Amino acid sequence: MAQAVETYEGWYAFHDFRSIDWNQWRSLSAGEREEAVRELNEILKQYESVEENKQGSFALFAISGSKADLLFVHFRPTLEELTDVKNQFNKTRFAGVTTTPYSYISIVELGAYTIPPHVDPETDPSVQRRLKPMMPKSGYVCFYPMNKKRDGEDNWYMLSMEDRREMMKSHGMIGRSYAGKVRQIITGSVGLDDWEWGVTLFGEDPLQFKKLVYEMRFDEASARFGEFGPFYVGNYLTQEDLNALLLEGLNG
Amino acid sequence: MAQAVETYEGWYAFHDFRSIDWNQWRSLSAGEREEAVRELNEILKQYESVEENKQGSFALFAISGSKADLLFVHFRPTLEELTDVKNQFNKTRFAGVTTTPYSYISIVELGAYTIPPHVDPETDPSVQRRLKPMMPKSGYVCFYPMNKKRDGEDNWYMLSMEDRREMMKSHGMIGRSYAGKVRQIITGSVGLDDWEWGVTLFGEDPLQFKKLVYEMRFDEASARFGEFGPFYVGNYLTQEDLNALLLEGLNG
Amino acid sequence: MAQAVETYEGWYAFHDFRSIDWNQWRSLSAGEREEAVRELNEILKQYESVEENKQGSFALFAISGSKADLLFVHFRPTLEELTDVKNQFNKTRFAGVTTTPYSYISIVELGAYTIPPHVDPETDPSVQRRLKPMMPKSGYVCFYPMNKKRDGEDNWYMLSMEDRREMMKSHGMIGRSYAGKVRQIITGSVGLDDWEWGVTLFGEDPLQFKKLVYEMRFDEASARFGEFGPFYVGNYLTQEDLNALLLEGLNG
Amino acid sequence: MAQAVETYEGWYAFHDFRSIDWNQWRSLSAGEREEAVRELNEILKQYESVEENKQGSFALFAISGSKADLLFVHFRPTLEELTDVKNQFNKTRFAGVTTTPYSYISIVELGAYTIPPHVDPETDPSVQRRLKPMMPKSGYVCFYPMNKKRDGEDNWYMLSMEDRREMMKSHGMIGRSYAGKVRQIITGSVGLDDWEWGVTLFGEDPLQFKKLVYEMRFDEASARFGEFGPFYVGNYLTQEDLNALLLEGLNG
Amino acid sequence: MAQAVETYEGWYAFHDFRSIDWNQWRSLSAGEREEAVRELNEILKQYESVEENKQGSFALFAISGSKADLLFVHFRPTLEELTDVKNQFNKTRFAGVTTTPYSYISIVELGAYTIPPHVDPETDPSVQRRLKPMMPKSGYVCFYPMNKKRDGEDNWYMLSMEDRREMMKSHGMIGRSYAGKVRQIITGSVGLDDWEWGVTLFGEDPLQFKKLVYEMRFDEASARFGEFGPFYVGNYLTQEDLNALLLEGLNG
Repeated sequence: MAQAVETYEGWYAFHDFRSIDWNQWRSLSAGEREEAVRELNEILKQYESVEENKQGSFALFAISGSKADLLFVHFRPTLEELTDVKNQFNKTRFAGVTTTPYSYISIVELGAYTIPPHVDPETDPSVQRRLKPMMPKSGYVCFYPMNKKRDGEDNWYMLSMEDRREMMKSHGMIGRSYAGKVRQIITGSVGLDDWEWGVTLFGEDPLQFKKLVYEMRFDEASARFGEFGPFYVGNYLTQEDLNALLLEGLNG
Repeated sequence: MAQAVETYEGWYAFHDFRSIDWNQWRSLSAGEREEAVRELNEILKQYESVEENKQGSFALFAISGSKADLLFVHFRPTLEELTDVKNQFNKTRFAGVTTTPYSYISIVELGAYTIPPHVDPETDPSVQRRLKPMMPKSGYVCFYPMNKKRDGEDNWYMLSMEDRREMMKSHGMIGRSYAGKVRQIITGSVGLDDWEWGVTLFGEDPLQFKKLVYEMRFDEASARFGEFGPFYVGNYLTQEDLNALLLEGLNG
Repeated sequence: MAQAVETYEGWYAFHDFRSIDWNQWRSLSAGEREEAVRELNEILKQYESVEENKQGSFALFAISGSKADLLFVHFRPTLEELTDVKNQFNKTRFAGVTTTPYSYISIVELGAYTIPPHVDPETDPSVQRRLKPMMPKSGYVCFYPMNKKRDGEDNWYMLSMEDRREMMKSHGMIGRSYAGKVRQIITGSVGLDDWEWGVTLFGEDPLQFKKLVYEMRFDEASARFGEFGPFYVGNYLTQEDLNALLLEGLNG
Repeated sequence: MAQAVETYEGWYAFHDFRSIDWNQWRSLSAGEREEAVRELNEILKQYESVEENKQGSFALFAISGSKADLLFVHFRPTLEELTDVKNQFNKTRFAGVTTTPYSYISIVELGAYTIPPHVDPETDPSVQRRLKPMMPKSGYVCFYPMNKKRDGEDNWYMLSMEDRREMMKSHGMIGRSYAGKVRQIITGSVGLDDWEWGVTLFGEDPLQFKKLVYEMRFDEASARFGEFGPFYVGNYLTQEDLNALLLEGLNG
Repeated sequence: MAQAVETYEGWYAFHDFRSIDWNQWRSLSAGEREEAVRELNEILKQYESVEENKQGSFALFAISGSKADLLFVHFRPTLEELTDVKNQFNKTRFAGVTTTPYSYISIVELGAYTIPPHVDPETDPSVQRRLKPMMPKSGYVCFYPMNKKRDGEDNWYMLSMEDRREMMKSHGMIGRSYAGKVRQIITGSVGLDDWEWGVTLFGEDPLQFKKLVYEMRFDEASARFGEFGPFYVGNYLTQEDLNALLLEGLNG
């Protein structure tokens, strides 16, 4: 039996994708729409203040294509808080004009092999910042879930720890060569959601997401063992952007 | 032909996942909502009294993410009772504002190899408690269905009983190493629902679900032979929690 | 090229799964509901009279879990009759409050190897009863569709007829060991619906469905070659049960 | 690199499956329903007159089971005409009470190996009749889409042309043995729809569809290389049958 | 580890498939429909003027079959613009009567091996025209997404660059043999959408799409390594065609 690599976990993550039902939104009166946006702004301010208090992180994105319109990403210390966040949000007027085409529950994860020796992950400030990361507030986002394959000869979980570590090291080197261009947050979801990991990428140029993921695909860890779910891309939205999206140009 | 391991069965299980249509719920008057919650509380009390009479077990959970909002888990002595439970519930006002994104029908199952020798499963009190288990009333839940793979060389059902027993023993040892942290109820669903087993985990810390399932994935029984369906996680809800969820903060 | 085993066919089968939209049902007035049930009872009586005239068989079941609420099973001499049955039913008031989560079209089938030598299947009364079977009017039902796999080394249709007959014989012996506990009707659906066969099991104890299907799974015919679709289980409903389901306890 | 067999193409085909929303249909007044049927009859007459002018072929079928209720099959010389047919139909009142559970776009296709030597497919009347076929106006229909597999050792497109021709010849011989019982129209859909071919069978006895497809499944071309989509069966509907379906017995 | 071929990217692409809800459209008054079409024409003129200013390209197609009715294809320099295009469009009245059965986000891509030596892709006018292509304004379109397989022995990403280049060269030669008949725009979508590439074909005769894709399927690059998503075909729509589609013949 192969041995599991030790992992360290930080904040839980909730990727909440939403599609706007513009017909329903338009059917509200102008006053109702303004009231709904006011309520929405209040709840966004709550998320901001959670972040200011270092009790989590929050970011909002506009998603490209018709798979979703918005992505609310929440990091929080406990799973129960994320469920509460969902329920509180679903009680707002704005949530009532959205549908939920996708969501993802996971937890920020670092593999032991990415942590330098002689470092105590429980106290080291740099490790702690990686386990409780603050999301950037600009640029683009890419999210996709993934598995390691277990298919005949291509079974990641039957490899020796040595082989897995070697492949992940090479994989990590590609990632590092994008330093400054793409920031990557890995979240584990074994036992929490339908895939084994979530990958969230941040950067100022979405072409770099394509370059990075494409380059990694030739890496044995991905080429032989990567199984990928749906991919979502989009750009960061400030509260002002969101207000404009919802309140301006509604009739053309 | 390989030989089936003998199994012992106890209570039937119905995992009933529900999503709340908050628009429909909000469209009811405050009085209608209170009346619906009153009716819901009454039916929950019936479930409690079934449990008090040792005629089954019941627990309610809030599910994380947008795959579902609530999970009602019922254990009962007969399949017909579970169908009646569904139909009775569906006639309530509250059920009318929910949809059913998933459900699972199975029966509590113990493999012969988990039962000590010289024990009569039909009368042994400890085995009987495992076949007719009472669910914890706090903490977190994890549910997922699974199969044993039948794919080319990786065909569980073509292995000798000896090989299967060996692998399940190793598998069980991982489970036991989480004693006190994760409680596990295995339900069989061959011939009852779309996967071969349901796994329901209970614990005070959901991170332990991830640790356990991840560690098991390296075990040959899972690495080569496990096929996994959707994963759901959530936290226990008291009746008071449910009332608060439904009646408080509805407009923001 | 492998050779097809000869098959004998009897009545066509229509498994018609229905989910009840309780909101729509409740939105009717009590008088409309009674009228709809009266119309439904009339049509059920027609189905009964078809059976009395040996022109087919009919049975109704309540399905467990949220995949469906009801299962109407019709056996008839021609496919066109089954289409007419569907259309006539869909014009009723009650059908208007149901949705159709699943259905299956097939034809009762006997493989030549299950028929004793020197017996003429076209005239032998016992074979004829198996080709035009009457469904039991009590107990539980289990339905699932299945294929024989055609995947690399595990290709049923590339085996010699001798090998297939050998495996089906062993398979049949398991089935016979459940005589008195589980009755099994095999319907063929190659060229008629999305899987190659439908399996309908009847019995007084649904645990025996699990025992039988589980035991068969270790049989090479299933272990290497069985591919299974969704499983549905439920219990027989009399007309009185159906009336009570629809008319009693609607508001809690 | 293997070489593609030359193919000859004739009319484009549009298989348009429809489900009737009986609630919507019933909600129309009797006058509106009659008006909708009158409009529908007019459009069906247009289809007939296209066929009379040898500018295409049309047939309508009632589909068994709940996957669909009706199948409109159109053959036309150009793809654009089929898109126009769809849009024109969708503007009718009747189309407004239907949904579209499935459709298929393809083009009548003959493989070079099915054409006798020394025959010019562009001018030979018998070949031309096969490329621009008129559909029968009675009996039953069966439709399914299919691929040739490209999976490891079972890769049709890596076989030599000689091997493929040999297998298709054997395949064709089974087809011919059903002459007079089943008529088969093959339409190609590579680059046009989600599968590589559509198969439409016509015959007076639907049992022969099952017998034919089952027998072919043991043929190496199907056993090792056939991948099959959904199967639909039904019976031919005259305009009078359709009128009766829509206007008679609506309330029971 | 195999090495990624260098790629050059140009405009981002948004394939926006829409289905028309004719019931909703009909439920508008004639005046509302005219107003909606006027608004739609205005937005189409904006797209045209973007193209005139060489700031992107736009084309509209009617899709065959019931998978979709319309396809709006947009090429733009940034991903954010495409998201804005979506949101602006979704706020129109016309968008309110459509649903979005599919969409695709990708970026025009050229592999290094398709660029002649001694050419600087960043400045060469012919390469630049291929990276920022103008779509034809007549004829037919075909769109499908695809992957290169990573399955056991058939793993594109484990091949040497030499082998991949050889196969792509042969693949490209088939494409070039259709010069004048089919124009092909390849867009990369690794990290952007669910498949690795999108393929958009343009031509005056849709039969040539079938001939091209079929011929390529026997090429090792496709035969062993191609994995294909859904296929959509349709014909070019002028603004006048669209107006006629929406405003004429609505009641039959």
